[in-house]
Amino acid sequence: MRGVRHRLSFSAQKGGRDKGMAGAYCIGIDIGGTYIKMGLFDAQGQGHAFRRTPSNASGPPETLFETLVRACRDLKEAARRQGGRVIAVGLGVAGKLDTSLGRVVFSPNLPHMAGFPLAPRLQEALEIPVFMENDANVFGLGEAWAGLGRHRRHWIGVTLGTGVGGCFIVEGSLWLGDHLGFVGEIGHMIVDPHGPPCACGQVGCLEAHASGSALTRGMIEALKAGAPLPEEIEHVVRSGSLTPEDVYRAAESGDPHARQLFQRMGWALGLALANLFTFLGIQSAVIGGGVSQAWDQFYPPMMETLRTVPKMLDPSGIQIYRTALGPLAPLYGAAYLAWTRLDGSEGPLRVEKP
Amino acid sequence: MRGVRHRLSFSAQKGGRDKGMAGAYCIGIDIGGTYIKMGLFDAQGQGHAFRRTPSNASGPPETLFETLVRACRDLKEAARRQGGRVIAVGLGVAGKLDTSLGRVVFSPNLPHMAGFPLAPRLQEALEIPVFMENDANVFGLGEAWAGLGRHRRHWIGVTLGTGVGGCFIVEGSLWLGDHLGFVGEIGHMIVDPHGPPCACGQVGCLEAHASGSALTRGMIEALKAGAPLPEEIEHVVRSGSLTPEDVYRAAESGDPHARQLFQRMGWALGLALANLFTFLGIQSAVIGGGVSQAWDQFYPPMMETLRTVPKMLDPSGIQIYRTALGPLAPLYGAAYLAWTRLDGSEGPLRVEKP
Repeated sequence: MRGVRHRLSFSAQKGGRDKGMAGAYCIGIDIGGTYIKMGLFDAQGQGHAFRRTPSNASGPPETLFETLVRACRDLKEAARRQGGRVIAVGLGVAGKLDTSLGRVVFSPNLPHMAGFPLAPRLQEALEIPVFMENDANVFGLGEAWAGLGRHRRHWIGVTLGTGVGGCFIVEGSLWLGDHLGFVGEIGHMIVDPHGPPCACGQVGCLEAHASGSALTRGMIEALKAGAPLPEEIEHVVRSGSLTPEDVYRAAESGDPHARQLFQRMGWALGLALANLFTFLGIQSAVIGGGVSQAWDQFYPPMMETLRTVPKMLDPSGIQIYRTALGPLAPLYGAAYLAWTRLDGSEGPLRVEKP
Repeated sequence: MRGVRHRLSFSAQKGGRDKGMAGAYCIGIDIGGTYIKMGLFDAQGQGHAFRRTPSNASGPPETLFETLVRACRDLKEAARRQGGRVIAVGLGVAGKLDTSLGRVVFSPNLPHMAGFPLAPRLQEALEIPVFMENDANVFGLGEAWAGLGRHRRHWIGVTLGTGVGGCFIVEGSLWLGDHLGFVGEIGHMIVDPHGPPCACGQVGCLEAHASGSALTRGMIEALKAGAPLPEEIEHVVRSGSLTPEDVYRAAESGDPHARQLFQRMGWALGLALANLFTFLGIQSAVIGGGVSQAWDQFYPPMMETLRTVPKMLDPSGIQIYRTALGPLAPLYGAAYLAWTRLDGSEGPLRVEKP
């Protein structure tokens, strides 16, 4: 159950930072719907080379796979040029995964990858162990390793993108629960049973309030309801190309509908965190993902909710941080995943950056 | 931070089940607003003597304290008669506690105990270490030691009484979070931000839907609103003596208002558990406390909610159990607390009952 089935044949290459890992690197990969991003990391959490290549998500899985292999070989070559070698790969993928088989079950951003044995195929091609985790989990691991989670004991990670992902970091390690195939799904906690519908089929999920989709859908609905929106917004909505960035710009320029959407987003985020803090007896979170760039819009109502709603929490102790590693967090986390799983533990392999 | 400050002077008496603990017992105590209940337990989780005495909660704290000391000495004597000795005491108390100082900060059932240094005073009087925890936490420890939690990895404990308490058991141990002075407070997670007011000052907490108070308040409000209630209920409401048992009996005999209150209770419990299961990636809970005796009324709507609401969970895997130890669970848990803290760890001291 520990995500190792597909690396059983690599025991000879197992190792860890304490076993003479000088010159050893792990590759951390973030496979998104638009780009595959990867980096070469040493055991100290230092990135030595980064690559970005289009993922061509609409093409066949073999094409994405070949792109991935080529990019990894390129990074292996980069490691060799530095007198080192790549000993493992970590993969972060959005969606429902079978991490023990290294297989994508379903990924909204990579629809054609469903059922594709990504980790074992990559392992076979590269001849080094490959580990795989959910994108929100590798975000959390990245911040735990090299970002804002380093000095915190227990905290919640939240990724704000098209959807809302999450993770729970316990003393620097990823909480995996009962290994049910999902964990940390803060986006599908119901914050308001009378709230808006969610893509999952439920109503009132955090994701239905606080995701990029919730922002764009909210603007589209306002327009349909006849609300007077800024001309530019009306134009992009009608052309079908509205993005969360557009909603953010509208809010920045004072549009009350856009502002209301960010208000609702902050309130819902605050409420979900308040509920988890109240149960878990903790008070820290790190928030990342593309939509976290709208920080100044949703942070004030989120903190207002966190300060006033939970009666148990001391408001002065609450610590909510914006990602320190930005879009690189999942790369760091995927590499950290590889380092820790190689180590034979899911425990912390925590190293302070110099 | 590990709740041991007041036992530093007892290191000579420290020990554990592996250190020749034959004939050694711990006393587990549940201090409620009506009764003080206690039991004498060996390291195998076997209860050897039980006592119950009125707590006289309306009297001065010294009176309660003296009652407690007398009852403990009585159990120490019982242990001696069996050729053994009592080596530690565990206390379960409802309310906000400073467990590191062994002090009651505020307890709704024991208003006069606020600020009273219960654990250190008892320790001084009995000359053995005394440990203290929240009543919902000792409930969970009891079930983890000798009840339904024994064979489960990660699970949520819920106590249904005048209020709603909770705990989180991680591999047989109590989750303590960041030691903020509260943890597991499922009763103050907000399940419906448009819901009924809660005693804590917030609206829509689980406790405002699923506690004994929520049941009686719901009936009183129905009567005020002019609802046609059964004559017996109307009588007890008007006499100011309505209990959750009365509401249960009304539901049993088919009163639609009482049934509706249990429906709401089950729905809210299901929703709070669904949200926690979705985030924690777990699927088990054990429910106790006096109001859990209304199981047949709230279990069906709770399970209906758990089966249909969380889109991540496989309904067939969900395991919700009714307490195996009933009103004795907190006694077992308080004794287990003493055994594990004596052991120097908060980790599992898990023994299978014969």
